[in-house]
Amino acid sequence: MKRFGRVVRIKPDKVELNQLKEFPLDRAFQFIEPGPVVLLTTAHQKKPNIMTMTWHMDVDFVPRFACVVSEMNYSFAALRATGECVLAIPTVDLMTTVVDIGNCSGQDVDKFDAFGLTPLPAAKVSAPLIAECLANIECRVIDDRLADKYDLFILEGVKAWIDPKRQERRTFHANGDGTFVADGRTRNLRKRMTKWQSII
Amino acid sequence: MKRFGRVVRIKPDKVELNQLKEFPLDRAFQFIEPGPVVLLTTAHQKKPNIMTMTWHMDVDFVPRFACVVSEMNYSFAALRATGECVLAIPTVDLMTTVVDIGNCSGQDVDKFDAFGLTPLPAAKVSAPLIAECLANIECRVIDDRLADKYDLFILEGVKAWIDPKRQERRTFHANGDGTFVADGRTRNLRKRMTKWQSII
Repeated sequence: MKRFGRVVRIKPDKVELNQLKEFPLDRAFQFIEPGPVVLLTTAHQKKPNIMTMTWHMDVDFVPRFACVVSEMNYSFAALRATGECVLAIPTVDLMTTVVDIGNCSGQDVDKFDAFGLTPLPAAKVSAPLIAECLANIECRVIDDRLADKYDLFILEGVKAWIDPKRQERRTFHANGDGTFVADGRTRNLRKRMTKWQSII
Repeated sequence: MKRFGRVVRIKPDKVELNQLKEFPLDRAFQFIEPGPVVLLTTAHQKKPNIMTMTWHMDVDFVPRFACVVSEMNYSFAALRATGECVLAIPTVDLMTTVVDIGNCSGQDVDKFDAFGLTPLPAAKVSAPLIAECLANIECRVIDDRLADKYDLFILEGVKAWIDPKRQERRTFHANGDGTFVADGRTRNLRKRMTKWQSII
């Protein structure tokens, strides 16, 4: 159904531990709106973990987000118990790592160690930031009324970070069939969005 | 933050009214998982309408979806009153039309007429399909517990359609800043997704 092609493999950017900078919280919804694959980190009983997540969306500019974390995932219990997580935005150079993260469970594997990712302390939540990601959004669970029935959590972003030095900025999207599509060309239609000038 | 570039403008595919074919319902989640901009149609008091939507996600393979339709949108009342809608998936050739649809309200404009789109009768819901879209998913609202607080609706897909003859199949994503990113290269990582072989 989708065209296939080769994504040029890019060596992941080198990371300096102090290169993440605060990002305006009220613009953090812009990382989630395009629907990229994200990494969700948690820290339960001081044990950091990462899961690959593809079911999530913006809910409010505050920002608020909704996400589905299956109760079969090891992260479900962590999210319920701590009420905290980080949404980290990986770019195309991390695509195979992101897939591999989704293939194993934090019950068996220390994923930061196994995949050579660098946990950084967040400012407001116990879950760690991922230094290698383009952006990180610290979040708290503010509503879990739909968690029992749909595994759906409402999150509120409380702090956002960006790596301004990162050269590779293309995110990627899961097609739900084991294929992934990288960001292609961007088109600027700001002037055309006459109703939304105050938001964009 | 994103690279800018020119998206090649493509003449929209010609539409034959009978060219939509049924698509397996249990694969319909694959149209939403990549996070494309979608069009949501409703039909309230026999008046069809379309809105542009960028906040939505998969919730279940059934399929079930969640979406945020602001109560400021004309479609909010239609969705609440009828409990029915269609999620239609536009491709890059419709990008400017999709933006223009988001600039006006169904209260003032007959959007099918204004934008030259073709409403087709759905099989199970009152909301119309859009003939010019790559895919259409007929949906019913199954849970609106979070509609008052977050404008969030849980939908269940009841029938899905695809246009198998459509040549342009690249969808596009909203960056939330008035820019839109088209699908780029697709990478097949099926063999690598060892945990998910039964799903993909």
